[in-house]
Amino acid sequence: MLAIDWGSSSFRAWHLNAQGEVLATLSTDQGILGFQGQGFAAYLQNHCGPWLAQSKQVLMTGMVGSRNGWQEVPYLSCPAGTQDIAHALAKLDTELHPNVQLVPGLQYAGHNGLMDVMRGEETQIIGALQLTNMTDALLCLPGTHSKWAKAENGDIGAFSTFFTGELFALLTKHSSLAGVCNTQFFDEPAFLLGLEQAADVRGLSHLLFSPRAAVVTGQMRPEQAGSYLSGLVIGAEIQGARQALAEPGLISTENPLLLVGSEVLTHRYQQALGFYQLPCRSVSGEQAVLAGLYRLATGQSFNVSEVAHV
Amino acid sequence: MLAIDWGSSSFRAWHLNAQGEVLATLSTDQGILGFQGQGFAAYLQNHCGPWLAQSKQVLMTGMVGSRNGWQEVPYLSCPAGTQDIAHALAKLDTELHPNVQLVPGLQYAGHNGLMDVMRGEETQIIGALQLTNMTDALLCLPGTHSKWAKAENGDIGAFSTFFTGELFALLTKHSSLAGVCNTQFFDEPAFLLGLEQAADVRGLSHLLFSPRAAVVTGQMRPEQAGSYLSGLVIGAEIQGARQALAEPGLISTENPLLLVGSEVLTHRYQQALGFYQLPCRSVSGEQAVLAGLYRLATGQSFNVSEVAHV
Repeated sequence: MLAIDWGSSSFRAWHLNAQGEVLATLSTDQGILGFQGQGFAAYLQNHCGPWLAQSKQVLMTGMVGSRNGWQEVPYLSCPAGTQDIAHALAKLDTELHPNVQLVPGLQYAGHNGLMDVMRGEETQIIGALQLTNMTDALLCLPGTHSKWAKAENGDIGAFSTFFTGELFALLTKHSSLAGVCNTQFFDEPAFLLGLEQAADVRGLSHLLFSPRAAVVTGQMRPEQAGSYLSGLVIGAEIQGARQALAEPGLISTENPLLLVGSEVLTHRYQQALGFYQLPCRSVSGEQAVLAGLYRLATGQSFNVSEVAHV
Repeated sequence: MLAIDWGSSSFRAWHLNAQGEVLATLSTDQGILGFQGQGFAAYLQNHCGPWLAQSKQVLMTGMVGSRNGWQEVPYLSCPAGTQDIAHALAKLDTELHPNVQLVPGLQYAGHNGLMDVMRGEETQIIGALQLTNMTDALLCLPGTHSKWAKAENGDIGAFSTFFTGELFALLTKHSSLAGVCNTQFFDEPAFLLGLEQAADVRGLSHLLFSPRAAVVTGQMRPEQAGSYLSGLVIGAEIQGARQALAEPGLISTENPLLLVGSEVLTHRYQQALGFYQLPCRSVSGEQAVLAGLYRLATGQSFNVSEVAHV
């Protein structure tokens, strides 16, 4: 089979044999945002042509199934388990291959009546639960739009999105903080100070001005302010998610938070979670999405030799 | 005298006679950010030459006294009253006129040890207190970086900055919300929904994703999402400031919050404060800064015919 994770800013493909062994992989920065809604078939044919020809089925997850992607797939409502999602795979209308399917995203209506959505993370969550042999867990998937989700009996239930990654990028690239926050360095004490300040009752809107005030008054250097800002936005996310999703005792040493993502991001979040004394266990986001795609396509578990345990 | 408010993105000058009557005014969009740190003297000579020649003194407030302005003036520490600020006016080193002074900004060290700063708003606060004959008040100055300040016995004490205006502009111009938030319309129910949601325990970082989720799931139209986002950021500011600065009973019908700013902004904030049942009274930001400059320069009260009372 051919398993594909096609997100906003990246493309990843795995060519697997019938035993679930990875024969080849391709990873590029050609996310769907660069396509302006067309040219997906040509891109896939040009880069994965031989694998397509050799695969009985192709399964794609991520923003490729969004309105701005190749073909829009309606969101499935939570709670939703692996079976629900597997039954809702959508057939892609293409002449490229007779059996290409898209994983539906999930929507969750909070108690306030407002919807939250995910696309691609549901596949990572299915994979992460399978890789760790867990059915009940709180998961954190840090990123541009971080997701925190609760799994119960293997079903994905309540989840919440946080604007963390995009907010940090916006602030350090386009805002008045760009000149006072240097993001080329990591200053641990400043990062920890940001985590500590994140609980301020005045909230994030106040805190976002504080790196600037600290630099213009000489309290911080720009190299510190960048790490401090990182601590503020990651801290605000963890504080907010914890209050909404983690009833006392849900996270413990026996039942740690599952942290799913890239090595760099999960490492940073591990530091932050440690600061708040929240036990966690990291799973590679890449392995999780592959395991999720394999599970959804075949109904079988994916075996991976190494999963980082922390 | 010549009174000047020279901020990041605007320039305002008032030519006053010895009786404090306004003889002429000039308002342009030539804020200090467009100067790259030079050319201030030439600009002032070219646009206010005759007034300079006729004035015994020139007093300037705002970012013109910042590191990126004409000449940096150190921040004065809070609490600071009109006398303290008047004594700390800094002489500008220029051949343009023998008596040009700059108003110092203020710095305030919160209980967390981190500094907050303002430059220009202290002048508006002095003016607003004088125009309303108040000495003890909570003030809100909405804007790019909104300021909330406490005045006690006429002294400016604790204050907090909120990133509200810049955050809204960043999000609607440069973020993934740009395509889903139309800011050309004002939808009152959506704005009120934003104010209501602003108290969500997950905080602003979560809420900032909600306009996007609401639009992609068909819960909101982009014209609603823009007003909803406005309600979220203004609501987060008011909620945060209120918790930090407004002990119970501080704001009442007898002692309303002083709202100082442009007509458009104070009107929007009045709606929001009304939603939270916080009595307020609006003062024109332009009149406040003029009254403040006049007071600091002459030690006398500025008489203005009309001040909007709400």
